[in-house]
Amino acid sequence: MMTAAQLDSQLHQIKKAARELRAAPTAKKNAALLIAREKLLERQSEVLNANQQDLHDLATETSPAFRDRLTLESGRIAAMSESLSQVAALPDPVGEVVEKKTLSNGLRVSRVRAPLGVVFMIFESRPNVAVEAFSLALKAGNGVILRGGKESRKTVEVIYAILRDSLQEAGLPVDCLWGITDPDRALITTLLGKPNAIDVVVPRGGEKLIAFVTENSKIPIIKNDRGMCHVYVHEDADLEMAASIVENAKTQRPGVCNAMETLLVHESVAPTFLPKLRVRLQQVQWFGCERTREILQGDPQVKPASQESWDTEYLDLKMNCRVVKSVNDAIDHIDRHGSKHSESIITRSEPIARLFQAEIDAAAVYWNASTRFTDGFELGLGGELGISTQKLHARGPVGLRELTSVRWLMDGSGQVRK
Amino acid sequence: MMTAAQLDSQLHQIKKAARELRAAPTAKKNAALLIAREKLLERQSEVLNANQQDLHDLATETSPAFRDRLTLESGRIAAMSESLSQVAALPDPVGEVVEKKTLSNGLRVSRVRAPLGVVFMIFESRPNVAVEAFSLALKAGNGVILRGGKESRKTVEVIYAILRDSLQEAGLPVDCLWGITDPDRALITTLLGKPNAIDVVVPRGGEKLIAFVTENSKIPIIKNDRGMCHVYVHEDADLEMAASIVENAKTQRPGVCNAMETLLVHESVAPTFLPKLRVRLQQVQWFGCERTREILQGDPQVKPASQESWDTEYLDLKMNCRVVKSVNDAIDHIDRHGSKHSESIITRSEPIARLFQAEIDAAAVYWNASTRFTDGFELGLGGELGISTQKLHARGPVGLRELTSVRWLMDGSGQVRK
Repeated sequence: MMTAAQLDSQLHQIKKAARELRAAPTAKKNAALLIAREKLLERQSEVLNANQQDLHDLATETSPAFRDRLTLESGRIAAMSESLSQVAALPDPVGEVVEKKTLSNGLRVSRVRAPLGVVFMIFESRPNVAVEAFSLALKAGNGVILRGGKESRKTVEVIYAILRDSLQEAGLPVDCLWGITDPDRALITTLLGKPNAIDVVVPRGGEKLIAFVTENSKIPIIKNDRGMCHVYVHEDADLEMAASIVENAKTQRPGVCNAMETLLVHESVAPTFLPKLRVRLQQVQWFGCERTREILQGDPQVKPASQESWDTEYLDLKMNCRVVKSVNDAIDHIDRHGSKHSESIITRSEPIARLFQAEIDAAAVYWNASTRFTDGFELGLGGELGISTQKLHARGPVGLRELTSVRWLMDGSGQVRK
Repeated sequence: MMTAAQLDSQLHQIKKAARELRAAPTAKKNAALLIAREKLLERQSEVLNANQQDLHDLATETSPAFRDRLTLESGRIAAMSESLSQVAALPDPVGEVVEKKTLSNGLRVSRVRAPLGVVFMIFESRPNVAVEAFSLALKAGNGVILRGGKESRKTVEVIYAILRDSLQEAGLPVDCLWGITDPDRALITTLLGKPNAIDVVVPRGGEKLIAFVTENSKIPIIKNDRGMCHVYVHEDADLEMAASIVENAKTQRPGVCNAMETLLVHESVAPTFLPKLRVRLQQVQWFGCERTREILQGDPQVKPASQESWDTEYLDLKMNCRVVKSVNDAIDHIDRHGSKHSESIITRSEPIARLFQAEIDAAAVYWNASTRFTDGFELGLGGELGISTQKLHARGPVGLRELTSVRWLMDGSGQVRK
C-alpha cells in the first residue's frame, strides 16, 4: 500500500502531466498511439506470456465467460492494435470550436472543447479495455488512471509498460498514464475521495462495482450501468426480419449490455411468430408470460416468467417473452422495466416507429435493427469507454467528445458590463 | 407535510405531464411563455401585494442584500416578463439534430436533442428565479419542480398560480410545474432521494445549500458553486483599460458569482497602477500582499491578506490584491485558488493571452474584458439556471441546451450485427 505522501505525489505527477497534455499537438498524441500499436505487436509474446500466467493463476471454479474475457490471443492483440490506429485516425476533439459569435458590445465569444483533466477508469479483468481507455483518454488530452481487475494484473502490467514507453518515445510525459496494479481495494476508495485531483471516474463492470463507486465517489461519475434492452415486434412487422433481429440481439453476444433481454410481441402476430422463433432460438431458455406459454405449450424450455424476470439482466442465453396488446402497452412495459439503454421496434409503419422513438426515453432507440449497434466502434467513435445510461453529459457510447468539456473563451477590447 | 402516497402521486403527475411535454410542439410552449408574460403584467398588483407581505414578515435583522433580492417592484416585474418573451424567441432545442450519418451497413443514425425529463430547482428567496427557471425548463421540454426560499413563499405562490394558469390556457398540462411552498425542509431531502422520478437537481444559492444537496442527493446535480474569480493585469496592459475592467468586475454588482474577488498585478506595473486604482476603488476594502501594502503604504483601508484571504469569496465590496512576478505566477495562483468559474487577463499581447486561456482551467477565460459577462442573458442564452463550475455536462451558464440530453435514433431495414 502507498503512503498518503506517495499517493499525493503520484496524483501531483499525473495532474502536471495532464496539464502538459492539454496543450499537446495532435501529431504527438497520434504518434504515441501509433508507436503503441507497433510495440503491442512487437512485444506480443511478452503480453501473451503474462496473460498465460494470469490465466494459470485463476481459480479452477472461475466461469468460462470470465476466463474468456481475460484471455488474449494474437487475434485479440491484433484487434487492440487496430483500435489504436483507429483512434489515431479520428479527428482531435480538443480545440474544436463548437460555437462562435460576436456580441453586440464587440466581445468575441467562442465555445471550445478542452480535455476534462484526469480520468479514472475502473474496469474488470479485460486487458483490452486498458488499451481502449488509454487511447481515448489520451487522444482527448486527458491524463488517465487505470485500475483493472486483479486477475489481469500481470497482463496489464506489461501493457502499461508498453503504453508508457510509447508516450516517452512520442515526447509526451509518461505520467499521463498511471496504471495501478496494486490489488488493494482501499486505494480505489481513497482515490474516489480526491475530487480536486481527479475530474471524472468511469466504472465499467458489474452492478456491484457500479454500486460501490456510486456510494463512495466524491468525483463526478460517468456510469456504465445495466442494459435491460427490449425488442418489440409490432403487428405489421416483417416477421422474417423480426426473427433475424431478435436472434441477433439475443444470441450474437449475450454477455454484453446491448443484448436483448426481453422480447415483446403484439398479440395478433404472436401465434404465428413465436413458434417459428422458438425453433430458431432452441439454445435459449425462455421465461414467458401466460399467453406465451399457451402458444408454446408443452415446451419444457419455456418457464413461467415471474415478476422479477422483467427486471432481470441475464447477460446469458436466457430471455423473457411477453405478448402485449398494443404499441402503447409495449412502451409502458419498457417505461417500467427498461434501463434507458437500447430499445428496438420492428414495424413497417413509420408513424408507429416515430411514436416509439419519441416516447421511449432511452440512450438509443432503433427502428428495424438489432440493439447490438449501441457500440462506439460500430458508430464510428473509434471505441468507447462504455455505454452511459445517464442523461447528463454522456448518453450512449462514451467516445472522444464525451471525454472533453466545452469552455467559453472571450476576446475583448476593454468591455465592461453596464 | 405530505404523506408518502401524496408525494408519489405528485411525482407521478409531473412525470406524466413531462412525458406529454416531451412531444409538445414549439408553438404551444411559446404560447405558454407569452401568456405568462401577459398575465404577469396584468396581475402585477397581486404579485406586488404578496411580495409586500413577504417583506413585512421578514425578521428585522435581515441583511439589506437579502431584502433586496426578495423585493419586487414594477421594474423587476417588467424584467421578468421581458425574460419570458426572450425565451419564447429562442430556438427550441428539442429535436435539434446534432449529428446525422449513414453507416456502411445502411443504418441511418442521428443524434437528437431531447428533454432531460423532470428538473428540480432549489433556490433562495429570489422570486425572479422562479420565472427564469420555469421558462427555461419548459422551453427545453422538461417538467419542473421549484422550491424557493421560505421567505418568498407568498410571492412565489402567486407566481406559480400565474404560470400554471398560463400552461392551462396554452393547452399544456398544468402539472408540468410543481411549485413547492411547503416550508418543510424534510420534503427536499425526500425528493433528493428519488432518482427514478427526478432527472436532475439544480441547487442555486449559498455554499450551505450546495453542500446540503451534494451530501444528500441520489439525483445527478448541476451545481452552481463558488465564484472565486481573478483579474490579472500583465506588464504590458493598457492600464486605463485595466482599471476600468477591475472596477467593473469588482463593483458593478459585488454580490454575484462572476464578480472579481482577487486582483493579480505584474510587479513591473504595480507601483504605477495600484495607487491610481486605489483612488478609484475607495469604497472597496482591500486585503493586500506585502508588496501591495508597501506600494499603498499608509492606507488604513488596505489590510494585510491572510492565507485564507486568497480562498475567500467576499461577494461584497472587498477584494484581495497580490503582486506577481510573471504570467506563470498568476496562472499558478489561479490554479491553486480559483474555483474554475471566470478568469480574466489584461494584456496587449495575443500570445500571452492565448497562453493564459490555454492553461487556465475555468468555465470562462477572458482577454481584456470584465468577468461579469459570464451570464446567460449577456451571452444570448435567454437567461440561465445558474453558472456551472462543473466540467461534466454543463460548464458556465446553464441555458436551454444544458437542460437537454442527446439521444441516438437509429433507422434500419433489418440490420443485424456480424
